[in-house]
Amino acid sequence: MVSEERLIFRSAEIISVGTELLVGQIVDTNARFLSAQLSEIGLSTYRHVVVGDNFDRLEQAMRRALSDNDLVITTGGLGPTDDDITADVTARIAGVPLVSNRDIERRLAKRGRGTPPGYPLIPEGCLYFHNDVGTAPGCLYFFTFEGLTKAILMLPGPPREMEPMFLKYVRPVLEKHSGAKFIHRYVRLTGIGESRSEEMIRDLIEHQDVVTIAPYANPGEVIFRVSQRLEPEDEDETDAVVEAICERVGEYVFEVGPRSLSEVVLDMLIASGETCAFAESCTAGSVAASLASIPGASEALLGGFVVYTNEMKHALLGVPLDLLESEGAVSGACVREMAKNCRLRTGSDYAVAISGFAGPSGGTDKDPVGTVYIALSRASGISVKRFFFRGGRDRVVKQAVAAALNLLRKGMIDE
Amino acid sequence: MVSEERLIFRSAEIISVGTELLVGQIVDTNARFLSAQLSEIGLSTYRHVVVGDNFDRLEQAMRRALSDNDLVITTGGLGPTDDDITADVTARIAGVPLVSNRDIERRLAKRGRGTPPGYPLIPEGCLYFHNDVGTAPGCLYFFTFEGLTKAILMLPGPPREMEPMFLKYVRPVLEKHSGAKFIHRYVRLTGIGESRSEEMIRDLIEHQDVVTIAPYANPGEVIFRVSQRLEPEDEDETDAVVEAICERVGEYVFEVGPRSLSEVVLDMLIASGETCAFAESCTAGSVAASLASIPGASEALLGGFVVYTNEMKHALLGVPLDLLESEGAVSGACVREMAKNCRLRTGSDYAVAISGFAGPSGGTDKDPVGTVYIALSRASGISVKRFFFRGGRDRVVKQAVAAALNLLRKGMIDE
Repeated sequence: MVSEERLIFRSAEIISVGTELLVGQIVDTNARFLSAQLSEIGLSTYRHVVVGDNFDRLEQAMRRALSDNDLVITTGGLGPTDDDITADVTARIAGVPLVSNRDIERRLAKRGRGTPPGYPLIPEGCLYFHNDVGTAPGCLYFFTFEGLTKAILMLPGPPREMEPMFLKYVRPVLEKHSGAKFIHRYVRLTGIGESRSEEMIRDLIEHQDVVTIAPYANPGEVIFRVSQRLEPEDEDETDAVVEAICERVGEYVFEVGPRSLSEVVLDMLIASGETCAFAESCTAGSVAASLASIPGASEALLGGFVVYTNEMKHALLGVPLDLLESEGAVSGACVREMAKNCRLRTGSDYAVAISGFAGPSGGTDKDPVGTVYIALSRASGISVKRFFFRGGRDRVVKQAVAAALNLLRKGMIDE
Repeated sequence: MVSEERLIFRSAEIISVGTELLVGQIVDTNARFLSAQLSEIGLSTYRHVVVGDNFDRLEQAMRRALSDNDLVITTGGLGPTDDDITADVTARIAGVPLVSNRDIERRLAKRGRGTPPGYPLIPEGCLYFHNDVGTAPGCLYFFTFEGLTKAILMLPGPPREMEPMFLKYVRPVLEKHSGAKFIHRYVRLTGIGESRSEEMIRDLIEHQDVVTIAPYANPGEVIFRVSQRLEPEDEDETDAVVEAICERVGEYVFEVGPRSLSEVVLDMLIASGETCAFAESCTAGSVAASLASIPGASEALLGGFVVYTNEMKHALLGVPLDLLESEGAVSGACVREMAKNCRLRTGSDYAVAISGFAGPSGGTDKDPVGTVYIALSRASGISVKRFFFRGGRDRVVKQAVAAALNLLRKGMIDE
């Protein structure tokens, strides 16, 4: 191992090892996680590579990666079976023996994790990182390659082992070898599409300089990531850009920060000591489940009704049969009744009702597939809004969930 | 373009193009989709690579890929902006001009999709594939590289454009260039973990030969993929292996085929003309939403109740307050009442009730976090089952959803 004291990593390449990735069995989420992490600590990633459990192909990939980068990160191939070749390939390239390690073995034994004889082996003289979930340790090894100091970081493949190891043990070490920091801030919007919101801040995107703006979108949500690479002497200039974005699209912004729409709504309810309930037709429980996915939801979420058929809208929520006949179940009148009675029957402060045509069949000339009516009932009265969402069944439902939560959020602000 | 009539592809490499992939903004699902598709038509993938929107790096990646493979598939970088460089790199490597195409332009105009002047451009003489969702066409171009015939297939980046294009237009063309076919069959299990089910068929996995068995798992589901590479003269030998698996783990198998557990349950209900409803506490609507995600769900799903608090279990489902006090909301007695009254109030043939500790907080010594009680009420009576699931809040809920649907499925088989 060479001395690595002053080595600043300029760029990294991520190699994911595993035949299961190449035959399409699983998606490689490790590369995404690591790229986002590296970006936060100022390390650029120029390439991801996925190779199978094949010695020659992995060696070729690692040699190419070492030629082009200071740091090569592998995930996977560290288990005890013959398929697991990552440590062997590293040993071959770095010309270092693999050895057992008492400290790692003791720690595994303490956790009651038996390991096969001669496992795990790590490159002699490497920095190693404990695996608090599984058995394969992580290793960082510095050595001379083509006359330059390079490093290989080997991490386990399962995300539930790799991610906590990286956050707890590896990231603090990498930060010491980073020449700069990145600041990332997130402006989150709902109720507006990606292209329209980009249009509204086009001048900011076109004139971006030190601070960059990257838009991305999920169904029902647009996120602008505002980033700045910060050298030690630089000042944080992201505030002005975040403010400029909010000036233009503020009415759609529900969060400047890390929280999802469900988290924002739940936090608001808990802060005000109020409760909510839902009467769901086309979303069929997805809105309630979305709030319930947040720990602590029981402080504010009472529950509600899934009324998928007309009979249920009548039987469970008292929507009059003649109203269902004359107006239809997908109508402002229907969700108004649903919301009103949901609030009365649950005793919640807020009740939201959702009914729409999620597709692929259904819909009318006036209200085609994608039409969703949402009503909010609260102490001050009932409001109804009609939405139209594009996309397949799944996308329409996801957008309806976001719209329902956002209507609730706006209702709480008005109240 | 060279003549490609008889070219049989031996191997493919997939290059995903886009800086957004390298900074960890989005996960590359295209490589997984394409690998699985290629595997089905008998084409092996030995490497995935992700590169940013950088001309030199993409050119280097494509040249390396062409050296090692017959077919190089790119996704992304085909849009109208300066960042979109994939077609330019292909033109440079293949030594072919990019040209506009009347047929593509007419088709886009018909769909009312305006395009900037001079867009899209494709390699002269290539096979092209229409994009029925967006604007960027796909292209397959054969040419001589290092003295051998090679092909570059360029596909758009957004999965909702790429996937339908591949399935409708591209796959039939690639099949003509494949030397063999793969048969894939899927045996789907629930109610058993990955390691235990693998243990039960270990001898089959160890003695696999022509027919291979690959296990994989989602929360609440284990899938064994049974595959065979079929040359024209070969016989399909997958039947015997599927039968042998079912002999060992048959009691956990809910499907030999493509359907999810929700689809199987919905199909059974529709076939028998019966209906179901759900009373959900910790799953908070996720079970109903899971059935509702399948088109046609309204034929069998009536709806139900989300009763997240004790008060709601009492108010909406008539669970006695003294029962909630003495037994607790997470108990066999509670879900029994919930299921019974859910069936009575909705008039459904089957009602399933779920209550448990999803975590991270809650739980008792007797029923720690991960404990879930599920009851099924039907004409012949009520049955209750206690489950214990490992993992975080999200995993516990997903496993509870699968267990609830599976209890319903088994109840229908018994009935």
